[in-house]
Amino acid sequence: MAIFVRTKYAMRDGMRVSTKREANDLLTEVDLAVQEEIVARIRTAFPEDQIFAEENGLHELPANRDGRTWLIDPIDGTQNFVRGLFPAFGVSLGFAVNGKPVAGGVAVPGKGELFLAEKGGGAFRNGERIVVSDVDAMGSARAEIDFSGPWDREEILQKFSPLMVAIGQVRCHCAAVIGLCSIATADMDAYVHVALNPYDYAAAMIIVEEAGGLVTRLDGSPIHVFDGGRGVLASNRLLHDALIDVIV
Amino acid sequence: MAIFVRTKYAMRDGMRVSTKREANDLLTEVDLAVQEEIVARIRTAFPEDQIFAEENGLHELPANRDGRTWLIDPIDGTQNFVRGLFPAFGVSLGFAVNGKPVAGGVAVPGKGELFLAEKGGGAFRNGERIVVSDVDAMGSARAEIDFSGPWDREEILQKFSPLMVAIGQVRCHCAAVIGLCSIATADMDAYVHVALNPYDYAAAMIIVEEAGGLVTRLDGSPIHVFDGGRGVLASNRLLHDALIDVIV
Repeated sequence: MAIFVRTKYAMRDGMRVSTKREANDLLTEVDLAVQEEIVARIRTAFPEDQIFAEENGLHELPANRDGRTWLIDPIDGTQNFVRGLFPAFGVSLGFAVNGKPVAGGVAVPGKGELFLAEKGGGAFRNGERIVVSDVDAMGSARAEIDFSGPWDREEILQKFSPLMVAIGQVRCHCAAVIGLCSIATADMDAYVHVALNPYDYAAAMIIVEEAGGLVTRLDGSPIHVFDGGRGVLASNRLLHDALIDVIV
Repeated sequence: MAIFVRTKYAMRDGMRVSTKREANDLLTEVDLAVQEEIVARIRTAFPEDQIFAEENGLHELPANRDGRTWLIDPIDGTQNFVRGLFPAFGVSLGFAVNGKPVAGGVAVPGKGELFLAEKGGGAFRNGERIVVSDVDAMGSARAEIDFSGPWDREEILQKFSPLMVAIGQVRCHCAAVIGLCSIATADMDAYVHVALNPYDYAAAMIIVEEAGGLVTRLDGSPIHVFDGGRGVLASNRLLHDALIDVIV
């Protein structure tokens, strides 16, 4: 599947792209093909399980919010994939029980990276254990601030301006799986977004947690992936309280 | 030299790093080694020319601001290089006459990319001609907003908040050569920074211009690399007026 995605990226000038929401939220045939493949495998292996996914009629909240649920984002970072910003896009597959991600996989085909984590078993990149950073001062920390689309921009500035002033370094790749997994690998120390969908972060959330990090709502409250909340704050754990303090 | 830089990146955990300005502005032995090598070659080939560079006593403004001057940033994106954020760093070598860059080269070792441009001769990536995008609407445009270090952050928010609201997509890699060259390759449409040094942008400026783009001060006024100005606005040219309108 990673090869399929990478090949399609190289061919992207010839792809069909339909506008979903404004000009920036792009849906591609790759999204649909990847999702279909993942859904088919889940339906075969776990026919009773619920599926919640970005595309194609699977984005209704599952009937049992505490039940066994697979969360799929076939291409996270679609804008980077379609318009082109290599290699900031990935395939995300999470599995939640009682609203808590307990297993997750993220593939970043452009970098040849596969992240895997399971509750209590640690987090891994291409089979090697990964651990969050030990940076504990805001002034020397790096935060990925996701600027999302224009529709979220006023809220982002309102909530994150003090953070933008306080933090040592700011980065923005606009792909939740990239931002979150970079905490798990200790490349970054924090990640914030005002409005993620559960399938955007479920897989990466357990990857960050199993690497020693913490993922909560923006006020520090725990996440149930179907609690209706949208804000997500992830960190290496050490910085979490200081981050909550500067988020408005 | 690209191989040297890439090898050093891989070895970076063992590097000597001394703090230059706060915790975020990092100087490495690689900076010094790369600069020394470039300087030696210039001194041999063009002994009369002036050199203006980031490290090691060459950062005094040249005596003749209109004279033939080489501008070197041995590693642009040092923070990404030292702390690690692959592959957002590059080597920058520009050449200016009368304060205007007339030739430039940028190497991005992590991506195996070499950008070259010469006044009137077009811009090239690894020998292939590159041209800016044709995006002409702010709502569908992508801007690289450089968040620099904490010392520039209040000014960045003050000047660029309306831009952050108006633009379709925001990205931030915090390396001027990456942000600028991504306009030349049409991956991005605009780049802004409140406080660049001449060696940060001289090479990439001629690369953007020769790819069809425009590089000015933030108010749209022309750049003389030694005019004492620090703000830089680069675009695909089509968006330039609209960008000036939203920069405070």
